[in-house]
Amino acid sequence: MKTIVSIIISLFFSFQLSAQVSYQRIANAENEPGNWFTYSGNYAATRFSPLQQITTSNVQKLAPVWIYQLRNPQGPFETTPIVVDKVMYISEPPSTVTALDVATGRKIWTYTPDMPKDVKFLGFGPVNRGVAILDNNVYVGTLDAHLICLDAKSGALKWNVVVGDNKLGYAITCAPVAIDGKIIIGISGGEAGIRGFLDAYNAKTGKREWRLYTIPGTGETGNDTWQGDSWKTGGAPTWVPGSYDKELNLLYWGIGNPGPDWNGDKRNGDNLYTCSVLAINPTTGKLVWHFQFTPHDTHDWDANQIPVLIDVKINGVVRKALATANRNGFYYLLDRKTGEFLAGKAYAKQTWAKGLDAKGKPIIIPGKEPTEKGNLVYPSLQGATNWFSPSYSKTSGMFYVSVREMGSLYFKQEAEYKPGQYFMGGGEQLLPGDNAYGAVKALDPATGAIKWEFRLQSPPWSGLLSTAGGLVFGGSVEGNFYALDAVTGKSKWQFQTGGQIVSNPMSFSVNGQQRIAIAAGSSLMVFGLMQ
Amino acid sequence: MKTIVSIIISLFFSFQLSAQVSYQRIANAENEPGNWFTYSGNYAATRFSPLQQITTSNVQKLAPVWIYQLRNPQGPFETTPIVVDKVMYISEPPSTVTALDVATGRKIWTYTPDMPKDVKFLGFGPVNRGVAILDNNVYVGTLDAHLICLDAKSGALKWNVVVGDNKLGYAITCAPVAIDGKIIIGISGGEAGIRGFLDAYNAKTGKREWRLYTIPGTGETGNDTWQGDSWKTGGAPTWVPGSYDKELNLLYWGIGNPGPDWNGDKRNGDNLYTCSVLAINPTTGKLVWHFQFTPHDTHDWDANQIPVLIDVKINGVVRKALATANRNGFYYLLDRKTGEFLAGKAYAKQTWAKGLDAKGKPIIIPGKEPTEKGNLVYPSLQGATNWFSPSYSKTSGMFYVSVREMGSLYFKQEAEYKPGQYFMGGGEQLLPGDNAYGAVKALDPATGAIKWEFRLQSPPWSGLLSTAGGLVFGGSVEGNFYALDAVTGKSKWQFQTGGQIVSNPMSFSVNGQQRIAIAAGSSLMVFGLMQ
Repeated sequence: MKTIVSIIISLFFSFQLSAQVSYQRIANAENEPGNWFTYSGNYAATRFSPLQQITTSNVQKLAPVWIYQLRNPQGPFETTPIVVDKVMYISEPPSTVTALDVATGRKIWTYTPDMPKDVKFLGFGPVNRGVAILDNNVYVGTLDAHLICLDAKSGALKWNVVVGDNKLGYAITCAPVAIDGKIIIGISGGEAGIRGFLDAYNAKTGKREWRLYTIPGTGETGNDTWQGDSWKTGGAPTWVPGSYDKELNLLYWGIGNPGPDWNGDKRNGDNLYTCSVLAINPTTGKLVWHFQFTPHDTHDWDANQIPVLIDVKINGVVRKALATANRNGFYYLLDRKTGEFLAGKAYAKQTWAKGLDAKGKPIIIPGKEPTEKGNLVYPSLQGATNWFSPSYSKTSGMFYVSVREMGSLYFKQEAEYKPGQYFMGGGEQLLPGDNAYGAVKALDPATGAIKWEFRLQSPPWSGLLSTAGGLVFGGSVEGNFYALDAVTGKSKWQFQTGGQIVSNPMSFSVNGQQRIAIAAGSSLMVFGLMQ
Repeated sequence: MKTIVSIIISLFFSFQLSAQVSYQRIANAENEPGNWFTYSGNYAATRFSPLQQITTSNVQKLAPVWIYQLRNPQGPFETTPIVVDKVMYISEPPSTVTALDVATGRKIWTYTPDMPKDVKFLGFGPVNRGVAILDNNVYVGTLDAHLICLDAKSGALKWNVVVGDNKLGYAITCAPVAIDGKIIIGISGGEAGIRGFLDAYNAKTGKREWRLYTIPGTGETGNDTWQGDSWKTGGAPTWVPGSYDKELNLLYWGIGNPGPDWNGDKRNGDNLYTCSVLAINPTTGKLVWHFQFTPHDTHDWDANQIPVLIDVKINGVVRKALATANRNGFYYLLDRKTGEFLAGKAYAKQTWAKGLDAKGKPIIIPGKEPTEKGNLVYPSLQGATNWFSPSYSKTSGMFYVSVREMGSLYFKQEAEYKPGQYFMGGGEQLLPGDNAYGAVKALDPATGAIKWEFRLQSPPWSGLLSTAGGLVFGGSVEGNFYALDAVTGKSKWQFQTGGQIVSNPMSFSVNGQQRIAIAAGSSLMVFGLMQ
């Protein structure tokens, strides 16, 4: 009997010891700059790498060191790789997970979930933005709205749970967020008249621990911001990962727009919590505070941009802040403990608001709603930015965002809800002769003032990475992967990848060598300095 | 009237002047080492680049400088790019032609022919191996067996002619060969019971100038090497480009195997001109001489490997020779003026012949035919090498070949000809536990003696390029693009491309910089030395 107990104890300890990617390691990501533990590199979602081997002086020697090509591309390749202990984990569209040797690009394992042939995805894609890792497991959300747990070493399936009903248009493109013992996953389907939510699952068992509906139900605070039953099909998806403050134990998540997207006639009211950021206690799943950027949106301006948690000195006082450049064209700085509005400023051309008031509410210019004949408004339907990540550099102190300088003719139509079908109420028309362009902009995070701007030929669909080497990396839809001087915005390097870049860059190191990775076209490219 | 004549004359001259890629330039390719005028770089098909900027000493600094990705890959990417005057022309599977700026990879134009939805291709693919250029035109063969002429500057269609009946299984995967005023094109469809041929078309008008059937018809010499009517469906395709000796005015073309592939019972005889090389007068289309490597083949050992034209000293006399490593496992050296057998030797494991006799005929070991139960023979069904190109280095004096060290269990079945359907009569089974592997081998072209061997993990599907920098480039199915020391066979460099390499490398220069290009996976990658 004693022996059996010993065996059990030793098994227990061997299990504990082999838990390679503990929550503590992820929470202290800055101690292991060679790894990239989460979608954004850290819980604060700064997408900043402390690595500084690649600098403004030597970046001209940057070249691909290995490439991984999708064998059967089935959608845009938007993944951000996770790198831990010399293994890279990526998702491939629509929902495959692959582990690669970071030194060579050699495939270690790959897992493709079974999905119905008629899987429903009413969006732009199909895509998948990445995986999460925790202990010995890798987690991915699938296009048919399952959450899957795989063994990190072998890729073997551990569990597979249904998150939403794909027949109603629920889908997952979002990378999960792994915190202490929990996997948080957001949902897509805003164009299908879903009622959005955010879920937490037990990391070991897959049991759902809580669900927070992003539209309040009958009797709940905020339900009265929806006309009639419109809340039941009001959208508010959660399709981009959130960020996390361990000390405050608050999870921050951006919420999508209301449905039907361009016709607000039958959903009068502010439509909470659409186009908002939520601060959530991840232990309980309870809402702690919210901030709505665009009340009663009719322009598809999701607020899903990942909230960036930074400490900013304002009037001599360091504030624990949350920074976000919203799809509606305004940059916002909030107190992340309370949700208090600290600062805000337009960072792109916008023609729908005179500005923000003292509380951060937009001062609406009348007559900017979509019409049957079409109404020209800036920014465009895709927003002044979109799902792709901004970056905050600890070394430069600047906030970087990929900007789409573009307007749309917004159209309004009737919309009738039919389960699992598009529920949009209009659309956009691109402007003939419009001089749409793109830019990377560096903002003063305290004020939103623009420090520099680097122009791109076309509105981008790629996020940004800043590094302690003084660089900002980003990609263009023309396929150029480029590096800018983080302080001046001057171009320092570029490489033609041959495919549209619709993903976020990240950085890691292997055998003492810093690497930069980006998905481009149907390839994952890893760059290093040539000797 | 005088004015009109002047205009006509000046138009005539301006046309002449703008004929950018004259036959003379192609015939004197060695004068312009920075260009790559033909599939193999020159008419002799040596796939040797005189460029010597990239050497055994600096190749470690080789890295991708730009990449072009296929947007919608529809088959393996086997193209060899043509580079002329800073423009690269590639084919994309199945039959698209794209022009790229060689400095940046920027697309200049792309042309995709209309093809029927039910285009027939009874082979391994669909693939396309490249284009030809002549004067102001680019030529490509299409999967549905058309030959197309495009304007090199704009990609506009100039003419489109039918070469074979695709409904009967005729298809084109072969790069055309452009010689003085003529476009020579080979045909695929050996598995469909076609009667093979080689065609020449007027380069300007698309009018067919001659057709040489690769199986003699009734009353023609060699028709008696076929039992009964078997010649009518006997295969003998011409699916890999040939080579050309301008001084002798002889075109050399490798001919595929007889059909049905693995059942020779109803096609007794040598089955001319299957598994042969033909020397053809390209002015008339008349056969000058032939040499058959494998009489009455039943192992699918096409002789389509491109004939390499080299001058070799034998017994103190320099012979104008033709070198080829055949799919049957033997290397052959022939006099290219007469077809005389000069030397031959096995370069890979083979178990079907005791050797070659004084005339180069194989001394057959009885009992090596495919059987109903399966019969183990080396080399495998795919041959000791295949369609991918060998290389001959002027500087090292060696002949390099990608070798598949592998056997097959050969099966025989009944075969009945039905138009446009598979007509094969058997197949192969891979050997469980067989230690198949690959190798690059360097041969003494005079004797076939092996000078060195570089082993590959798997049997390769990539050709080779040798350079005056003392290197041999090749690719593996595991995705490694590598460079070997041409003299010693030692590995000098490798790069993981992330896709299977099933193509031929080539080299060119732009702005004084030597480049190496290879199609890998669904990407065309161009490499250069990092500064």
